[in-house]
Amino acid sequence: MDECAPPSRRSLLPWLVGASQVLGLGAVVLTGVWMGRYRGGFAWDGSEQEFNLHPLCMVLGLVFLQGDAILVYRVFRNEAKRSVKLLHGVVHLLALIVTIVGVVAVFDFHRASHIPSMYSLHSWCGMATVVLFCLQWVLGLMFFLFPVASSWLRGVYLPLHVFCGVLLLVMSIGSCLLGITERLLFTIMATYSHLPPEGALANVLGVTLLCFGILVISIITKEEFRRPPNPEEEALSVHFKTLTEGACSPTP
Amino acid sequence: MDECAPPSRRSLLPWLVGASQVLGLGAVVLTGVWMGRYRGGFAWDGSEQEFNLHPLCMVLGLVFLQGDAILVYRVFRNEAKRSVKLLHGVVHLLALIVTIVGVVAVFDFHRASHIPSMYSLHSWCGMATVVLFCLQWVLGLMFFLFPVASSWLRGVYLPLHVFCGVLLLVMSIGSCLLGITERLLFTIMATYSHLPPEGALANVLGVTLLCFGILVISIITKEEFRRPPNPEEEALSVHFKTLTEGACSPTP
Repeated sequence: MDECAPPSRRSLLPWLVGASQVLGLGAVVLTGVWMGRYRGGFAWDGSEQEFNLHPLCMVLGLVFLQGDAILVYRVFRNEAKRSVKLLHGVVHLLALIVTIVGVVAVFDFHRASHIPSMYSLHSWCGMATVVLFCLQWVLGLMFFLFPVASSWLRGVYLPLHVFCGVLLLVMSIGSCLLGITERLLFTIMATYSHLPPEGALANVLGVTLLCFGILVISIITKEEFRRPPNPEEEALSVHFKTLTEGACSPTP
Repeated sequence: MDECAPPSRRSLLPWLVGASQVLGLGAVVLTGVWMGRYRGGFAWDGSEQEFNLHPLCMVLGLVFLQGDAILVYRVFRNEAKRSVKLLHGVVHLLALIVTIVGVVAVFDFHRASHIPSMYSLHSWCGMATVVLFCLQWVLGLMFFLFPVASSWLRGVYLPLHVFCGVLLLVMSIGSCLLGITERLLFTIMATYSHLPPEGALANVLGVTLLCFGILVISIITKEEFRRPPNPEEEALSVHFKTLTEGACSPTP
């Protein structure tokens, strides 16, 4: 079916991936401009400038790099699966490192400024996302890169891994949008309703993140962009199908 | 494959749907308690009490009823498709009416209180969701309930309709979470960091909405909960497949 998809539709893939990169990098740049131009730039000294690293790292790690880690299965759809899995894991590792720097930055700023942590809806959603992201990365590593689980267990876990991957991207973008709203109301509440340049820029950042998420998820859920089947994967698929059918007992 | 799914997994469906209803109704009740107990209740007089109808209507219409309209395809998976489609359209119509009341309430309150509208990220995301929701309802009605489009066009539109349905539920929940954050910071910013009962209740409402969305989307994306195929649908499916394969020209 994949090979039968009209070539015109398959040839859309590079354009859609390109557009996703423009949106993803655009979001990172907009965050940098917001924090650099309007919020005093970056530092690592417990000040507001250290806090400014938090949004930058979350947008870069938890959204852009995580989205790209998912996209590698479509961009390199004709490469050896083992190499693509390795790249998927490595980009996720980069995303994880950047995310941890972002989380440390905000806790360090709160500690230095005697501001309580973990009280807002943004912090609850964000922390749930980061914890699930770490769990997903460790389980993915154990199940698929250094398979300690049986083939059967990997087959059972794969749909959950895919579902949680998409859920994580959605939760990451949602948490970023909550963070943008929080930051705007903490800093420019008095003028936000007149939509000053900072408010407009932050709103556009939110819309850009939303569009990035919609585009990435629409690319990865399109049947014609999936990896074409290869004999090894086919054999594995038949193996799982046999196992599933074997488990289906006849009606007594 | 559907009929071969282990009965134990299929029998989970009523429990998962039940849990989704507990979460969805719980979210509506929490919103009512928040607005009724902490924000002065409800009225239709341009005051803050009119504004209070906005969150209640959006959680009830755009999240709970929209989620249930999607779920009818799984709950009534063995009923005639025509009846289920009609129910899907009717529940969406209810959702649309409640949503419009909620949107009018906030614009009316802003007008009466001379507060600008449509400047915040919440309003941008919320309005995009409402416009897409109206468009989706009208197109769904035209394509599927009173089919003015050809079978081929309906087949092409169906995946987009399904994708946009899931996207709309996600965007609705995201917009609600942004609205919760905005409302908390506009009303209890000074005490929110100590997590007073109102703040905790609103945070729990946000988490409940998130869990409702995850549960509904996990139910509708599970292969074993899909409608079992029937001869009429099979014939339609073969028809579309033939059309698709017919469009695939051989390599020159």
